[in-house]
Amino acid sequence: MKDEFAFIRSIQPGSHHQPTVVAGIGDDAALYDSEDGWHEIATVDTLVEDIHFSKKTMTAYQTGHRALAVNISDIAAMGGRPVFYLVAITVPKSGTWTEDELGDIYRGMGDLAAKYRMDLIGGDTNSTHDKLVVSVTVIGRVEKGVKLLRTNARPGDSVFVTGPVGSSAAGLDLLLNKGLEAGKENKWAAAHQTPMPQVQAGRIIAEAGLRTALNDISDGLASEAHEIAEASGVTIELEWERIPHELDGEERQKEWALFGGEDFQLIGCAGKEDAKKLRQLFEKDGLPFYKIGTVTEGSGVWLTEQGERTRLDKGGYNHFT
Amino acid sequence: MKDEFAFIRSIQPGSHHQPTVVAGIGDDAALYDSEDGWHEIATVDTLVEDIHFSKKTMTAYQTGHRALAVNISDIAAMGGRPVFYLVAITVPKSGTWTEDELGDIYRGMGDLAAKYRMDLIGGDTNSTHDKLVVSVTVIGRVEKGVKLLRTNARPGDSVFVTGPVGSSAAGLDLLLNKGLEAGKENKWAAAHQTPMPQVQAGRIIAEAGLRTALNDISDGLASEAHEIAEASGVTIELEWERIPHELDGEERQKEWALFGGEDFQLIGCAGKEDAKKLRQLFEKDGLPFYKIGTVTEGSGVWLTEQGERTRLDKGGYNHFT
Repeated sequence: MKDEFAFIRSIQPGSHHQPTVVAGIGDDAALYDSEDGWHEIATVDTLVEDIHFSKKTMTAYQTGHRALAVNISDIAAMGGRPVFYLVAITVPKSGTWTEDELGDIYRGMGDLAAKYRMDLIGGDTNSTHDKLVVSVTVIGRVEKGVKLLRTNARPGDSVFVTGPVGSSAAGLDLLLNKGLEAGKENKWAAAHQTPMPQVQAGRIIAEAGLRTALNDISDGLASEAHEIAEASGVTIELEWERIPHELDGEERQKEWALFGGEDFQLIGCAGKEDAKKLRQLFEKDGLPFYKIGTVTEGSGVWLTEQGERTRLDKGGYNHFT
Repeated sequence: MKDEFAFIRSIQPGSHHQPTVVAGIGDDAALYDSEDGWHEIATVDTLVEDIHFSKKTMTAYQTGHRALAVNISDIAAMGGRPVFYLVAITVPKSGTWTEDELGDIYRGMGDLAAKYRMDLIGGDTNSTHDKLVVSVTVIGRVEKGVKLLRTNARPGDSVFVTGPVGSSAAGLDLLLNKGLEAGKENKWAAAHQTPMPQVQAGRIIAEAGLRTALNDISDGLASEAHEIAEASGVTIELEWERIPHELDGEERQKEWALFGGEDFQLIGCAGKEDAKKLRQLFEKDGLPFYKIGTVTEGSGVWLTEQGERTRLDKGGYNHFT
């Protein structure tokens, strides 16, 4: 890249969707206003080249989409609507990423952001000797009093997910091991490359105002269930036959559905009657809602398959092991 | 590092300074409340190993301090008080950074944060094949209506800085070229390793409620003056003899003071009478205030030295050239 300042100007939005922006990109920091009656939400997530993605598995545009999507997903898991984002990008000096590709990354983010009328309000552009690193911060909002925390599960609750799991892992397998090109269209590959955060589902749950524990499935269904079980001090019982997936006939379907992660569906726990209400609200909006288990007293996560009950390991991705 | 989850637990604050935290680290995202009558401010900045710092120039603790300080400085340049921070850290798989050193990075941030009663409310921990990358997002607040933007300079204004410039560059030269060890105490090295953001100065300016253009000096005095001149459509005239520095007798004093940057002092422009009021307010609080030039009609930045006036280039650090 020839000129950092010129590049920053090229990615700078000319106008804002959000009326609460006071001053966006172009000064030392962004100024914006909160909204009466809403909490602020903040989250940050990073994608590292050759760890979370590579040119083999994703186009530049998809990398941008995904870098923003994983953060919006965290906002969705709090029931919030995403409002702003800031991007810190660290670009290899070697020139392995062209200026066009870097532009594509921002376009991938920008197109997804536009769906939610989000504004890019800040960023930082740096060089590195090695791999591309994209760190995105998203700021969102949720109605005051809505706290969809993982500590909220109680014995007797129903456990639900908002959509099929395992497709992203199946897609990654196609890309890494079965020669699928990053740019080729494929349903599973798309689940990995351009996951859609479940903002609408999160908003239904927030607006319902019911006690709900909610997590987005970034590290795998088993891992997220463990997080809720640990935080709430309960046991989560899952039923394999109820877990939605689109992997019938695949040898590794269980591994992908339980441990694959990165589908960015939401897993939640709510009282039995409340879960029925949520199902009705989801159906009214044309969204799927799957009951996949129950919460009981105790600790840990269990899976029942054809009547046989076994302890389910976390098995999620732990970045340092 | 053996276990990412254990590490995250180890850096998780047990309590919060800020009463507006609703839920900090430990869920999908942080929840917090804004304050009536205040704008929100957000900024992100990244430090990359072997680009912005190395083990030769900084200890792990200093790296943490600095990574947070550069962001707090952006809040200071908006007149704000820093409130929250989120840290995305990408750690080499090679083990060149030990778990103790990573802990030191967070301690360096934590000790600086405590000075401002800031809370760590989010983060992300990842591995990479290469160099350490620390990306910090800071959220701050400033009274509604206070917009200390770089577009605010007007012909007739006085130009001021809040403290000496060039010490950081002098320190870096000692560390890189003159064999000073990162851990050794040295005034200039400290200016580079543990710069103090000028929050108090920014707050005085914000509370004064006067039209002021304000920038923090991250890329060099000349570069920041250019940014204000461009954004405001004015000429900035600087006088070398008035520019405060602690570099007397040093051959490269002019280069360091004008282009060195990273001292994180503030440069501002305010009406002539307003600047006098600011000086009084600064002096009342025991803070220095240096008038270093004036704003005139036109464009560009000029330096007068011993009566001779020359055009001053940007000369700041451009990460892609």
